[in-house]
Amino acid sequence: MLDFIFKPESIAVVGASEEEKKIGHVILKNLLTQGYAGKLFPINPKRKEILGLKCYPSVSAVGEKIDLAVIVVPAKVVPSVIKDCGEAGVKGVVVITAGFKETGEEGAKLEREILDLIKKYGIRMIGPNCLGVINTELGMNATFAPELPPKGRVSFFSQSGALGVALIDWAIGSGFGFGKFVSFGNKADLNETDFLEYFGEDEDTDIILGYIEDVKDGKRFIEVAKRVAKKKPVILIKSGATEAGARAASSHTGALAGSDRAFTEAFRKAGVIRVEGIKELFEVAEVFKSGKFPSGEKLLIVTNAGGPGIIAADTAEKNGLKLYPMSKESIEYLAEKLPPTAALYNPVDVIGDATSERYAVVLERAMVDPNVDGVCVILTPQAVTDVENVAKIMLEKSKETEKPFVGCFIGGPKVREATSYLKTNNIACYEDPLIAINAYSKLVHYVKYKHREEDEYIKFPISEEVKKEIGLMLEALRDAGVSVIGEENAMKILSLYGIEFPKRGLARTADEAVRIAEQIGYPVVMKISSPHIIHKTDVGGVKIGLKDEKEVREAFLEMTINVKRAMPGAYIKGVNIYEMVTGGKEVILGVSYDNTFGHMIMFGLGGVYVEVLKDVSFRLTPVGKREAYEMIEEIKGKKLLEGVRGEKPCDKDAIVDKILRLSQLVEEFPIIKEIDINPYLVKEVGGVALDARIIIG
Amino acid sequence: MLDFIFKPESIAVVGASEEEKKIGHVILKNLLTQGYAGKLFPINPKRKEILGLKCYPSVSAVGEKIDLAVIVVPAKVVPSVIKDCGEAGVKGVVVITAGFKETGEEGAKLEREILDLIKKYGIRMIGPNCLGVINTELGMNATFAPELPPKGRVSFFSQSGALGVALIDWAIGSGFGFGKFVSFGNKADLNETDFLEYFGEDEDTDIILGYIEDVKDGKRFIEVAKRVAKKKPVILIKSGATEAGARAASSHTGALAGSDRAFTEAFRKAGVIRVEGIKELFEVAEVFKSGKFPSGEKLLIVTNAGGPGIIAADTAEKNGLKLYPMSKESIEYLAEKLPPTAALYNPVDVIGDATSERYAVVLERAMVDPNVDGVCVILTPQAVTDVENVAKIMLEKSKETEKPFVGCFIGGPKVREATSYLKTNNIACYEDPLIAINAYSKLVHYVKYKHREEDEYIKFPISEEVKKEIGLMLEALRDAGVSVIGEENAMKILSLYGIEFPKRGLARTADEAVRIAEQIGYPVVMKISSPHIIHKTDVGGVKIGLKDEKEVREAFLEMTINVKRAMPGAYIKGVNIYEMVTGGKEVILGVSYDNTFGHMIMFGLGGVYVEVLKDVSFRLTPVGKREAYEMIEEIKGKKLLEGVRGEKPCDKDAIVDKILRLSQLVEEFPIIKEIDINPYLVKEVGGVALDARIIIG
Repeated sequence: MLDFIFKPESIAVVGASEEEKKIGHVILKNLLTQGYAGKLFPINPKRKEILGLKCYPSVSAVGEKIDLAVIVVPAKVVPSVIKDCGEAGVKGVVVITAGFKETGEEGAKLEREILDLIKKYGIRMIGPNCLGVINTELGMNATFAPELPPKGRVSFFSQSGALGVALIDWAIGSGFGFGKFVSFGNKADLNETDFLEYFGEDEDTDIILGYIEDVKDGKRFIEVAKRVAKKKPVILIKSGATEAGARAASSHTGALAGSDRAFTEAFRKAGVIRVEGIKELFEVAEVFKSGKFPSGEKLLIVTNAGGPGIIAADTAEKNGLKLYPMSKESIEYLAEKLPPTAALYNPVDVIGDATSERYAVVLERAMVDPNVDGVCVILTPQAVTDVENVAKIMLEKSKETEKPFVGCFIGGPKVREATSYLKTNNIACYEDPLIAINAYSKLVHYVKYKHREEDEYIKFPISEEVKKEIGLMLEALRDAGVSVIGEENAMKILSLYGIEFPKRGLARTADEAVRIAEQIGYPVVMKISSPHIIHKTDVGGVKIGLKDEKEVREAFLEMTINVKRAMPGAYIKGVNIYEMVTGGKEVILGVSYDNTFGHMIMFGLGGVYVEVLKDVSFRLTPVGKREAYEMIEEIKGKKLLEGVRGEKPCDKDAIVDKILRLSQLVEEFPIIKEIDINPYLVKEVGGVALDARIIIG
Repeated sequence: MLDFIFKPESIAVVGASEEEKKIGHVILKNLLTQGYAGKLFPINPKRKEILGLKCYPSVSAVGEKIDLAVIVVPAKVVPSVIKDCGEAGVKGVVVITAGFKETGEEGAKLEREILDLIKKYGIRMIGPNCLGVINTELGMNATFAPELPPKGRVSFFSQSGALGVALIDWAIGSGFGFGKFVSFGNKADLNETDFLEYFGEDEDTDIILGYIEDVKDGKRFIEVAKRVAKKKPVILIKSGATEAGARAASSHTGALAGSDRAFTEAFRKAGVIRVEGIKELFEVAEVFKSGKFPSGEKLLIVTNAGGPGIIAADTAEKNGLKLYPMSKESIEYLAEKLPPTAALYNPVDVIGDATSERYAVVLERAMVDPNVDGVCVILTPQAVTDVENVAKIMLEKSKETEKPFVGCFIGGPKVREATSYLKTNNIACYEDPLIAINAYSKLVHYVKYKHREEDEYIKFPISEEVKKEIGLMLEALRDAGVSVIGEENAMKILSLYGIEFPKRGLARTADEAVRIAEQIGYPVVMKISSPHIIHKTDVGGVKIGLKDEKEVREAFLEMTINVKRAMPGAYIKGVNIYEMVTGGKEVILGVSYDNTFGHMIMFGLGGVYVEVLKDVSFRLTPVGKREAYEMIEEIKGKKLLEGVRGEKPCDKDAIVDKILRLSQLVEEFPIIKEIDINPYLVKEVGGVALDARIIIG
C-alpha cells in the first residue's frame, strides 16, 4: 500500500525555496495553501524559515516521523538527499528533479545510483523527472501545477507530466473531478502497475484512468490489471511505438505481430479499456460514473429529433449494440400515451413538440421492459422542450433502476444547465449522439469482461524426462550459437509436445531410402537434410509424390548430386523421407515474442491468406481454452474452416489443442522466442504439421 | 439562383399571429427584431395589425412585389395560400407547416397538390415540414428558432429541422459563425442539391456543411457536388440506411454492395468530405477556415509536451500523413537555437520550459522548409508558457505563408483566451491532438481532390448495329418476363461489348458435339443448355477436361440422359461445348444498382476471396480510367494479382478494360440492373470470362 505517498501524515519539501518562481517554492506553497492538513517541513540549509514555516537543514534534522519527501534539488544532489531521507526513516520520495535517464548515459548512471539507494533504505520512489502527486480529498497538491482539480472519484496516472499539467487545467475548466493524480516520469521505481494496483484497492477511487507510453513489467501489469479491472473500470491511452516493435523479427509470426499488437492483446486479456484520444478518455470515464451496468447489449434510444436518433442508431449498430423494439405491452402503452406521429419502435421518437412527460412515459416502461438493458436519452432544445425537467426525470427514474441512462443533449446555452445537472449527479450527458453511443458501448464491453468467467487453462501432461530432453537440446543448440532451429530439430521438439508431423525417417543411402519409404508407405516426399541449406527447393533438394522403389532410388541419387553441385561446401546428412500428406486446409500456427509482454501465439489461414491478407489472430500466453477458440473465430476467413463450396468442416478442436500445446511449450521453455508451423494441415479430424522452425534467443 | 429565398427584398408571413406562442408570431417577430431590413408583410385575414405592422388579408392584397412567403397556416389551407402567392407573383415559399407526406397517404396527396401548384406558378418551395431559412448577413431569421447564430462564412443545410434548432443553439453557445442556414424538411421541391449548388455559387459562403438522410436525385447530386467541391469544401453527415439498401439484391454483386456503399462512392466521386458525428462536422469545418491548403502530406508537429506529440504522430501515421524531419539546414538551425534537451526531429519537442520564442524559431523554419507542408502546434500550459504569445506568433507567421497551421492547446482556463483568439482569426485550434490531426488530415485529403485532374472517360466504339441487336434482345427478354439472363444470352451481350469468353458452340447431337470440339481443339468442357436448369452441376450437367472424340461422344449421351432423368420436365436445348481454359487468376467483375445513384461496378478476387472475405471494391458509373485502376489498388489481396510465390503478374490493364466496358454497357443500357461475371480468369496477358449472368428490371 502506498498510503504513505498518497495519504502522508507529514511531508518534507527538500529544496524548498523563497523565490517565487522556483519549483521548490511553488510546491511548498501548493501544499501549504490548498488544504493539506498534515505536517510540512521545508528543507533548505540556507534558510531558517520559508512561507512562515520553520526550515530545516536536512531531513534527518527534523527529528519527527516523515512519510513523504518531495525532492526538487539539482540532480547531482539527489543521491545525498535520498541517503538523508533513508537515515531519517522516510517511507516515500517523489523526485521532481529532471536530468536523469532522459538526458543520456550520465543521467542514467545517476538514476541507477538513486535506485540502489532507495532499495538499500527500503524507500519507495516516484520519478525522477515527474510532476508529482495529488490527492484532492486531502487538498494535497504535491506538484508544481498551480491549482488542484475539483474533487472526484476518478484517479489518474500519467507517464507525461506536461500532459498532466494540461489535464489539471482542463479539469478545472470543465469541472471534472479527480481523486488521486500522479505523474511518474522515468518510473525508476514505482510504475504504472503499482499505481494501478493501489488505485484498484483505493476505496476513494471508482474509475482508473491512465496515460502510458510503455509498460515496465508486462506480465505483472496483466496480472494486476486483470484483477483490478474486475473491480473497477481501467481506461488507458497507450501511445507510441514500442521498442519491441522496432526489434527485427526472424519469423513470419514475429513480423506479423507488429509493434502495437502485444498491447492490444495485453489490454484485452486484462479487461483494460483502451482509448485513443484525450477527450475520449474523459468521455468514456463519464459513462462509468453512475456505477450502473447494463445486463446486456439491448439499448433503447429515445429522442425528440429524428436525425440525431438515426446517428445514434447507426453508431450503436457499428458498435455491436442491439436495438430491439420494446415488448408488445410497452409499445401498446406508448401508443396510448404518445401522439400518433410518434415513432414507437427503437429509436422511440417522441417528436419535437414533446415535453418531459413524454420522456417520462418512455423511461417508465424502459425501466421494466425486458428488451431494454440501458437507455440513451437524446434531446434537442425545441421551443416547448422543458429541458431541465427532462434531466430531472432522468435522474428520478434512474434512482429506481439498475439500468444505466445516458443523456445526449444537443445544443448550447439552452441545454447547459441540464447537462451539468446530470453530470453532477453522475449521469453521463454528451453533446453528440456518436460520442454518447461510443462511450456507452465501452460500458457494455466492460460488463462482458466484468462478468466473464476465468478462462480454462489446460496443462498437458509432459513428463519430466521429455522436458529434460528438450532442455538439453535447446541448451546445446544455444551453446553452439544456433538461433534458428530448422525443420528436423524443430519437429523433434514440437512432436514431444504433441504437435503431429508426417511419418518420416532419415536415409543416408538409396537402399535405406527405399526401406524407409516402404515402412511409411508410398507415395512419399523426399527432402535433402543439411544444416546449411535453408531454401531446399532452390537447390533441387525436394521431390514429392514418389510412387515406388525405382522413383525413390532415382530421386535419392539425383537429389544428392544436384545439391552437391549447387552447394559444394554444404554438409549433407542424408535425405529425409516423409509420408505424403494430402487434403486438409493449410493454416499457420506460430509464436512471437514481445519484449514487454512475452510470448504471443498466432493463428491464421496459411498460404496467401497469411502472406498477402495477413488474416491472423494473436493471444498472449498463457492462452486459455476460450481464448484459443476466440482466435479461430476472429479471423476473417474462418468460414473457410467451416467448409465452403461443399467442403467438410475442419477440426477446430485440433487447432485449439495445438494452440494450447504451443502456449505450454513456450511458457515452459522461455528460451524459445519464435515458432512458425507453416503449414499445419488441419483435416476433418486432427491435422498434421508439414514444416516448422523455432527461433531461440 | 435562389437569392429570392436567401436574400429576399420583401417577405410575407402567411399565418402571422398575435399569440406569442404561435409559430406565426415567433417568425414574424424574429424577422422584425433580429435585423432584417427588407419589407415585411404579415398576412392574416382576421387582423389589421400585428407587432405594429400593417396586416393584410391575403398575399395578393398586399399589392407590392413579394420575393418570399413564409407559410405557417394549417396544412389544409396551404394549397389555397400557394395559389394566392402564385397570383401575387411571389417567387419563393417556405412551407413551415407539417402534416404532409410524413404523416401518411393523405398528407402525401396534399403534398403532391402543392407541388403541382408551385410548378404551375413557377414558384420554388422549401419544405413543407421544415424549420425555415436563415441569412445571418441580413439578420434574417425566417425560422421559429428564437435567435440567430453568430455571423460567419459557413453555410449549412439540414434534412432535420430539430437538429437545426439544436445546432443554432450550439453555435450561439460556442461562437461558431454561420452564413446561411436552411432546413428543407420533406424537400418536395428544393432539395440538398439545390442548396449545394446555391451555396457553391454564393460569394458569402466559404465552407458548406450539411446533414442528410437521403439524396433525391443521385446523378445530379454527384454532378453538382463534383463541381462545387472543386471550389469549396463540402462536409456532410449522411445517416441512416437507405431504401436502396433495403431492396433485395438478385446478384452476388448486388448483395455485396450493401446499403451505405453507394453513398460512400458518391461522396468519393464528388470530393465530398464525409463525417460521422455532429462534433466532427464542426471540428473539420474549423480546419478549412484559414483558406490555406497544404501542398502535400508532409506535416510538422511542434510540441512542448512529449505525450501529446506522440498521440499526434500516431494519429498522423494512421491517417496517411507523412512526418518527415525538416531539412538538414533547418535542423542545424534548431540545434543552435533550442536547448540541448529539445527533440529536433518530427515531432519537434521544444520542452516544457519553452516560451513563445522557441515556437517562433520552429515556425520560422517550417515556413520555408521544403519538408513541411503544414504545421500542428501543440501546447500545454506549463508554468512558464506564455500561451497568448504563442497564439500571436502563430497568427503572425501564418500571415506570411501559404502553409496551414493548426493549433492544439490542451487545457482549460489557461488556454481558453488564446484558443478563441486563434479561432476568431480563422486558425483552427483544438483541445485534443487526435481531433486536431483527424481534422487536418481531412484538409490534406480534400486538397488531393481539389487538385485532382478530371478522370479519363473512355468511349469504346460500339456500332449502332450492335446496340440495336442488344436492345432488341433485352426488350424481348423483358417482355417475356425474364429478369435473370443466364449464361448463354449474357455471354452474347457481354461479348458484343468486348468481354472475352471461351470459344464455344451449341451441339444438338453427339456428332455435332464432336465436330464443335474438334473446331475448338481438345480438351473441352461440356455444359447442358437449358433455360430451366440453373445449378447444372447438381444434375450432372457439367463435364470438364474431355480429351478426345470418344470422351465427348460418351459425355454427350450420359449428360442428356442424366439430366432428363433428374429433371424430366426441363426443356433441353442441347449441350454447350467450350474451350477448356486453364491458368490465370480468378477475379469477379460485377455491376450492382443503387436506387439513388445508379450503377456501381464491382471488382474483387474470385472464389473464396469474394465469398468469404468480401474483398471487393466499387465505383459508380461512369467509371473513369483512374478510378478503374484505383479499384484494383484498393482490394486487400491486390498482391495476388502482382504475382506471389513465383507467379507471373496478372494483366491489370485487361481488368481495367473490362471495368470500363461494363461501365459503358450499363450506362448505355440502363435496363441492365446487375451483372455477375464470376469468374473472370485474368492471365499474364488478357483474360477470359467463364460464367456470367445479367439481371434486368
